[in-house]
Amino acid sequence: MTVDLDSVRALAFDVFGTVIDWRRSLIREGEALGRAKGLTVDWARLADAWRECYQPMLSRVRDGGLPWTKLDDLHRMSLDRLLADFGIAGLSEAEVDHFNRSWHRLDPWPDAVEGLTRLRRRFILATCSNGNVALIVNMAKRAGLPWDAILGAEVARHYKPQPEVYRATADLLGLRPEQCIMVAAHNGDLAAAAGCGLRTAFVPRPSEYGAGQRTDLAPDRDCDVVARDFIDLAARLGC
Amino acid sequence: MTVDLDSVRALAFDVFGTVIDWRRSLIREGEALGRAKGLTVDWARLADAWRECYQPMLSRVRDGGLPWTKLDDLHRMSLDRLLADFGIAGLSEAEVDHFNRSWHRLDPWPDAVEGLTRLRRRFILATCSNGNVALIVNMAKRAGLPWDAILGAEVARHYKPQPEVYRATADLLGLRPEQCIMVAAHNGDLAAAAGCGLRTAFVPRPSEYGAGQRTDLAPDRDCDVVARDFIDLAARLGC
Repeated sequence: MTVDLDSVRALAFDVFGTVIDWRRSLIREGEALGRAKGLTVDWARLADAWRECYQPMLSRVRDGGLPWTKLDDLHRMSLDRLLADFGIAGLSEAEVDHFNRSWHRLDPWPDAVEGLTRLRRRFILATCSNGNVALIVNMAKRAGLPWDAILGAEVARHYKPQPEVYRATADLLGLRPEQCIMVAAHNGDLAAAAGCGLRTAFVPRPSEYGAGQRTDLAPDRDCDVVARDFIDLAARLGC
Repeated sequence: MTVDLDSVRALAFDVFGTVIDWRRSLIREGEALGRAKGLTVDWARLADAWRECYQPMLSRVRDGGLPWTKLDDLHRMSLDRLLADFGIAGLSEAEVDHFNRSWHRLDPWPDAVEGLTRLRRRFILATCSNGNVALIVNMAKRAGLPWDAILGAEVARHYKPQPEVYRATADLLGLRPEQCIMVAAHNGDLAAAAGCGLRTAFVPRPSEYGAGQRTDLAPDRDCDVVARDFIDLAARLGC
């Protein structure tokens, strides 16, 4: 079934989890570091712990406890603590910085590049991520993600789900919110986008958090589109 | 001669005049409007007059006489006056809006797409233009300009040559200014970029202002690179 969305001009994408598989990529980066430095670490546990720091760190910025801080720097603050917690010592500053930039080297889900390439023929494709611009640009260049514009938290100076991010994304594209579809694997993100007037597309990523994932397996609200993956999304949007 | 610029990671491009041929494109758009509406207008003179409004309008924002206003809206303020000056009447709001968005439909110089495509293999390509994001995105999509990021005035909330624009471009890319080359056909733009620590590449566009152009035919300061066009720029940068 093709969805009637004639007025839609742009798709705004959540990135972490929706476009890329952060967990498996971080484990891969950790294992490479472990081999290079002779470290024995449960890298899956470290990846999960790093991601668990994510919302609390964003909250500190959202609540004003921290001034505006780009995600690279929030990741680094979390990583410094986790290295101590996991007993990882003996890394140089350059090695810690390189590992922190694992987030710039995350791999897309297998359907992402093909789906985006098809979607781009018809729609403007923008990122609407909490990742800072450099992170998203470097990731896109490495993975071949064909964005038309890198927008989101850093240019809006707010972190999702604050409404300023969704509104700024539509405004910078010169569009009304209802001319944009927010694409995400996370119900909370879509609810916030819908609250700003954007349309919504849910694409489940049931292994984002590993084998035992229990959340975000299905949309918990009415979405304009629900698609299995980005190739299915392209088909449903007539691309 | 290949320039030694090992530390350079990104090229930041001026767009109007440097990447695209605004004058010929505006004349083309005017002629199409004239045919459709039976108007007899000197479209070259109107294109020049529209562009002459550009710096004075930006100055009003830079000086604080106008609050932040995106370029589309400044173009429209100028156009409304020019339509009266040129005795152009009888256009609907939709027709005026479409003509105002001629700036979204400007054509690149003949070497631009090939040169950028080569440069993109090695460098991050960002726009550092006074054009608003939607304008530059729509132009890129129509013309096939392969940008990695759309940055510049609107995300910096300042208009070039204010230093905030150049600094924000490097900062958003996660780079030091000297890791970026500003590419422009205009000496003033390059001087301002150099003042912020960016490297500079001059690419002359001797017919940007038509046959009688007398300014910006050659660099008036030392630039890191001087290239005939974007294909030559790619060759000089080892792409």
